[in-house]
Amino acid sequence: MKIGMIGLGKMGYNLSLNLRDNGFQVIAYDKNEEVLPKIAKEDIQTAASIKELAANLPSPKVVWIMVPAGEITDAVVEEVSSYLEKGDYIIDGGNSNYKDSIKRAEALKQKGIYFYDCGTSGGMEGARHGACTMIGGDKEAFAYIEPVFQAITVESGYLYTGKSGSGHFLKMVHNGVEYGMMQSIAEGFEVLEKSPFDFSFKDVARVWNNGSVIRSWLMELTESAFTKDNRLENMKGIMQSSGEGKWTVETALDLQAATPIIALSLMMRYRSLETDTFSGKVVAALRNEFGGHSVVEK
Amino acid sequence: MKIGMIGLGKMGYNLSLNLRDNGFQVIAYDKNEEVLPKIAKEDIQTAASIKELAANLPSPKVVWIMVPAGEITDAVVEEVSSYLEKGDYIIDGGNSNYKDSIKRAEALKQKGIYFYDCGTSGGMEGARHGACTMIGGDKEAFAYIEPVFQAITVESGYLYTGKSGSGHFLKMVHNGVEYGMMQSIAEGFEVLEKSPFDFSFKDVARVWNNGSVIRSWLMELTESAFTKDNRLENMKGIMQSSGEGKWTVETALDLQAATPIIALSLMMRYRSLETDTFSGKVVAALRNEFGGHSVVEK
Repeated sequence: MKIGMIGLGKMGYNLSLNLRDNGFQVIAYDKNEEVLPKIAKEDIQTAASIKELAANLPSPKVVWIMVPAGEITDAVVEEVSSYLEKGDYIIDGGNSNYKDSIKRAEALKQKGIYFYDCGTSGGMEGARHGACTMIGGDKEAFAYIEPVFQAITVESGYLYTGKSGSGHFLKMVHNGVEYGMMQSIAEGFEVLEKSPFDFSFKDVARVWNNGSVIRSWLMELTESAFTKDNRLENMKGIMQSSGEGKWTVETALDLQAATPIIALSLMMRYRSLETDTFSGKVVAALRNEFGGHSVVEK
Repeated sequence: MKIGMIGLGKMGYNLSLNLRDNGFQVIAYDKNEEVLPKIAKEDIQTAASIKELAANLPSPKVVWIMVPAGEITDAVVEEVSSYLEKGDYIIDGGNSNYKDSIKRAEALKQKGIYFYDCGTSGGMEGARHGACTMIGGDKEAFAYIEPVFQAITVESGYLYTGKSGSGHFLKMVHNGVEYGMMQSIAEGFEVLEKSPFDFSFKDVARVWNNGSVIRSWLMELTESAFTKDNRLENMKGIMQSSGEGKWTVETALDLQAATPIIALSLMMRYRSLETDTFSGKVVAALRNEFGGHSVVEK
């Protein structure tokens, strides 16, 4: 089978190599032309445009899109679908909002194009050597592209999740769980850092990874980070987020599902973006108002 | 080396077998006499009393205590230490509060007895086939008992953590992290359960365990639980706790360490113990007071 890969960022680039290693032909395109000669050296065919990519795929054409969620995904889906015909496949392997994926699948169904929303987990390393994927879309047509997922994931590492949207929904919730797990691990080390004991954090993460209840890939990454810098002295505690945590909380609100830990993990990320807060000023001002407690002047 | 094991509950029983398998002689005691013939069939020597156990150990005597934290541990430590001499060892492998462990170590130091506070993780399976241990206490005397930990833990699964108290402190924080991770996983499935999709939870947990960022032993246990009952229909969502989470939060408060996720995970456990709450009544009453919103009558 030949796959058209659109988007050669960290994930798409590594997935292309992964597909190649597993016996798939790949034709790759990215709007950033600089990356094309690089991947060409990896014995991967490149295309100068989405049109050229589509023209060089046999029928039924299978296109994997790995670009940022939102407008960029919309634009790419729209363009590539104009070169596709009934019975062709589009797989969106990015972190799209599941509601967008449902809309895209419905629109493409009108043209007879199969659209699969595929949540992809496992980071760069997973994309390169064995990812985890969750795929929603037409059940019967899935059989044709199932070998793709078998090949690029670790054993038992892919799941057909049901109707359109379910793959990205599951990946969204996965990321919400990830927020809470990360915050919980982080708070544990916060206590250790303020404790009266002199722990070596990389040793702590190491021992917690071997036989303990909380052993996990995230704890392995914690061990890796502390091995590089045992007090993380060369970085700030600013925690960015990319949207899936927020979507999980928004979805939980819509469903009236109580998810206080995931919600608070997200809020703690927002808190970390500010060196001072307006809410902090309000509380300090109120303590001053009722109790005469001094405020820290600016 | 011969080890005296006091306490043959799930953990002590399995640790005894683990020690035996690794070439240690074990003499075991439990105040529940019924368990003694059972472990005797496993080729483990039994003692009818703590005194008899101590009398049957060569010097320096090494006693591993695996009994419930608090008064029971206090009583056992006090009794067994009366049969020990300078240079003997006591290992408390239970979930004692680290402050108690510091006090016990200081008291026993007066008699020249080495006291080690050993946090033990990995559950029953770990106790039997390879645990994870974190051990605080005298650094130089540790070398003599280090082979015990090498033998009963998985590879890289033990850590000498520093002065007395540090082992149980680290285990306490480990359990706090565990609370947050468990709650986060649970909230993810709460969203899935209320979602418009029809997920098989055991399949979800399975795919999340293979290649995803949130793969972890806790997720493997989640997979196991959903494999037995895919909607957990035969149980209630009552979440007990055994103390270490509460101690983590208390310690965080003392250290002024912000740990909102761990604290809230604990509070969610408390919430789960009540079918109705007084705070719920207060909010409902207030909505009625200011807005005339109806309350649900009892």
